[in-house]
Amino acid sequence: MLDNLDKDIIQSLEADLEEGQVEQHKAMLTEAHPADIAELVEDISLDAGKVLFAQLPAELTAEVLMELNPELRADYLEDYSGTQIATLLVENLDSDDAADLINELDDPIKKEVLSKLEDQKQAKDLAKLLVYPEDTAGALMGTELIRVNAKWKVLQCVKEMRKQAEHIEKVHAIYVVDDNNILLGTLSLKKLLTTSTQTPISEVYSKRVQSIEATAEAEEVANTMQKYDLVVIPVVDALGQLVGRITIDDALDFIRDEAKEDYNLASGLTDEVESSDTILRITRARLPWLLIGLVGGLLAASVIGRYETDLELLPQMAFFIPLIAAMGGNVGVQSSAIIVQGLASQADMGNILARLLKELGVGLLNGIILGITIIGAGLLLGYSTLLSLTVAVSLVSVIVAAALIGTFVPLFLDRYKIDPALATGPFITTLNDILGLFLYFQIGRLLLGL
Amino acid sequence: MLDNLDKDIIQSLEADLEEGQVEQHKAMLTEAHPADIAELVEDISLDAGKVLFAQLPAELTAEVLMELNPELRADYLEDYSGTQIATLLVENLDSDDAADLINELDDPIKKEVLSKLEDQKQAKDLAKLLVYPEDTAGALMGTELIRVNAKWKVLQCVKEMRKQAEHIEKVHAIYVVDDNNILLGTLSLKKLLTTSTQTPISEVYSKRVQSIEATAEAEEVANTMQKYDLVVIPVVDALGQLVGRITIDDALDFIRDEAKEDYNLASGLTDEVESSDTILRITRARLPWLLIGLVGGLLAASVIGRYETDLELLPQMAFFIPLIAAMGGNVGVQSSAIIVQGLASQADMGNILARLLKELGVGLLNGIILGITIIGAGLLLGYSTLLSLTVAVSLVSVIVAAALIGTFVPLFLDRYKIDPALATGPFITTLNDILGLFLYFQIGRLLLGL
Repeated sequence: MLDNLDKDIIQSLEADLEEGQVEQHKAMLTEAHPADIAELVEDISLDAGKVLFAQLPAELTAEVLMELNPELRADYLEDYSGTQIATLLVENLDSDDAADLINELDDPIKKEVLSKLEDQKQAKDLAKLLVYPEDTAGALMGTELIRVNAKWKVLQCVKEMRKQAEHIEKVHAIYVVDDNNILLGTLSLKKLLTTSTQTPISEVYSKRVQSIEATAEAEEVANTMQKYDLVVIPVVDALGQLVGRITIDDALDFIRDEAKEDYNLASGLTDEVESSDTILRITRARLPWLLIGLVGGLLAASVIGRYETDLELLPQMAFFIPLIAAMGGNVGVQSSAIIVQGLASQADMGNILARLLKELGVGLLNGIILGITIIGAGLLLGYSTLLSLTVAVSLVSVIVAAALIGTFVPLFLDRYKIDPALATGPFITTLNDILGLFLYFQIGRLLLGL
Repeated sequence: MLDNLDKDIIQSLEADLEEGQVEQHKAMLTEAHPADIAELVEDISLDAGKVLFAQLPAELTAEVLMELNPELRADYLEDYSGTQIATLLVENLDSDDAADLINELDDPIKKEVLSKLEDQKQAKDLAKLLVYPEDTAGALMGTELIRVNAKWKVLQCVKEMRKQAEHIEKVHAIYVVDDNNILLGTLSLKKLLTTSTQTPISEVYSKRVQSIEATAEAEEVANTMQKYDLVVIPVVDALGQLVGRITIDDALDFIRDEAKEDYNLASGLTDEVESSDTILRITRARLPWLLIGLVGGLLAASVIGRYETDLELLPQMAFFIPLIAAMGGNVGVQSSAIIVQGLASQADMGNILARLLKELGVGLLNGIILGITIIGAGLLLGYSTLLSLTVAVSLVSVIVAAALIGTFVPLFLDRYKIDPALATGPFITTLNDILGLFLYFQIGRLLLGL
């Protein structure tokens, strides 16, 4: 394994590669796992990487390229012609990876690659895969699978499997179909091993099989595979015909990307950024949210501005502005995070009114506990009773309002097919800030008689 | 499939079960997937659930119980004696699930269950599994696997596999060991199918196998399986002896739980709560963070209190308190989210100083853009030039300070083995709020001459 290479080794390797001295590393490289080589490639310069790829067998190059992040892959692909991509890369990849690679290419080169494939069956299979829209089961699936007819006997089945297995890297499951390629079930390796060779498959296969339609969304694929603990799921068309299979690693990438996206949105980052990205790229991912925050801050300033005379009379009102604003923001994020997670796991959210009533309960309970605490603290710290009371009443109002907004907004966004995770970010915090300040100063006017 | 049962059906089923009318549902239940039945059980009352379990075969009951969330499982287990748990449940589960179940029991009943197991080999295997600390490879692994000796020929191998497969639900891989049970590699189904029966295994097995030590942390298991796209990974002891295997679904549960935990921490929720939990439970998960926010708010109040005379002279200073506080919070969360994600994916974080310098760059760039924007906006909205300048300078300072704190705190926590995701929650937001306000008022004193 190339795992945990330290900086020095990477630097000396990089220097060797840039000087074209690759012979001494060749043995290590061709024995390493593609994922390990990819990690190495991500750490070295583009020039050193190109020298490295020139040394690898085409099959390994193809696999390593697919392990890279898409931007870096595009950089390396610039040096390849359509014909090279077809014969050196695509022909060495499984159908799902091959389709992913082709999908990343620009339109003219995409067509060139498909036309240059030597294996006509592969070209046809790929063309079929390319039809499916991104993030559907069809786009995630591969076509490499073992398929046996329910009418066959075990012996014939083994013979056919041998033929089919030649073109397949890893056998995850044996699918049983009828004469029309309709998926009937699966045959376990266990049954295959323990049944006499003259038994018909129809007597031993398992009819209990979870499948998914090619048009299903990737999210549904991921949820189904997680729910039923599947490592591979067969994909069928509208007629129930077996068209492919999705392995858990592809679904897993999707699950991970989704989780990361939600987390980023909640943290106020627009793009997927990594700690190794450039300052400019990180700034670009952050600035939009900060600008929203800035506009929110200016709005908050104008809300407070309306109460300037009150502030002149009682400057102490200003002391609790951060408390009120922060609480509104915190409660809003808490409420919406629960909803967003519920929506992501496709839990039954019940009707909106019932959810809002529940949030009302949670908000009131939290608010009253915190309100009593703040009155106690206020008296202890020597603030006036009326000011403490104002803060406490405002706090309860803000918490209830923020809880309701935090619940309603993501449900509302989801209904209109907008990513509800947007609601957990700085956007909702800012909204709650402003509302909270308005409530605080209004309640102050009422209770303090300003 | 029981999938997508609507409310009406669940309610009528629940009523039937509570009245003991189960016969008409029995066929549907025994044919359903355990995960589907578990979903149903989570929707109905405990009493109805008990009637339902009484109708299921013990094997199915055991599987359904393991699909429930741990709290609900504990509720149902209360009715079982140690002997019943041993003979009805544990003996019907795979070793990894069985160990998980036993680990959830209280100590006295745990021992009783182990002593009542009829299968002495299973009891010994389980006792071995129970030794591993939570969240290690040993605790995640199961012992059901197919193991062949490298010296055997293909024919003998198939015979032995038949014997071993009888006790195993799903065969994921065939492991090749030597006479001392040292893991040598794997034998692919493809090779097994396509090789003549007299070939020795040693000639056809693949030596390239990723394994993991039983003492490795669950996080490492998950990262390794993701990196190498594995659906199953063999587990070895310190000597390299094959002791078990971990399937991706168990690693996946861990990955999902971790992601959820990070997300919850960032959203200010202490426990894993779901939208279906009770008001009391949701309140309990939220209150601690809100109390931290409250204390933070009081501290902020006392910081502002030190500048009461300044506020009396220029109440407009109060207008921008929310802006400064919100910006500090937002930038802090953005910075720490990037670090937390980097740490979670075990990316190389480089040295702390380099990271801080980079954040300094990002913070300055963001700060200057936003600072110029706020001066423009301030002049446009009619605020005094000096006040706008004060806000702009404070904004740059706050953003830089928050970016540095947001970077440093998670790295610091991680170094001392504390979950760095803690740093993304209300804790850091509050810290940045207070610091920001202090900077704002100090800069105001300097520039405005208050």
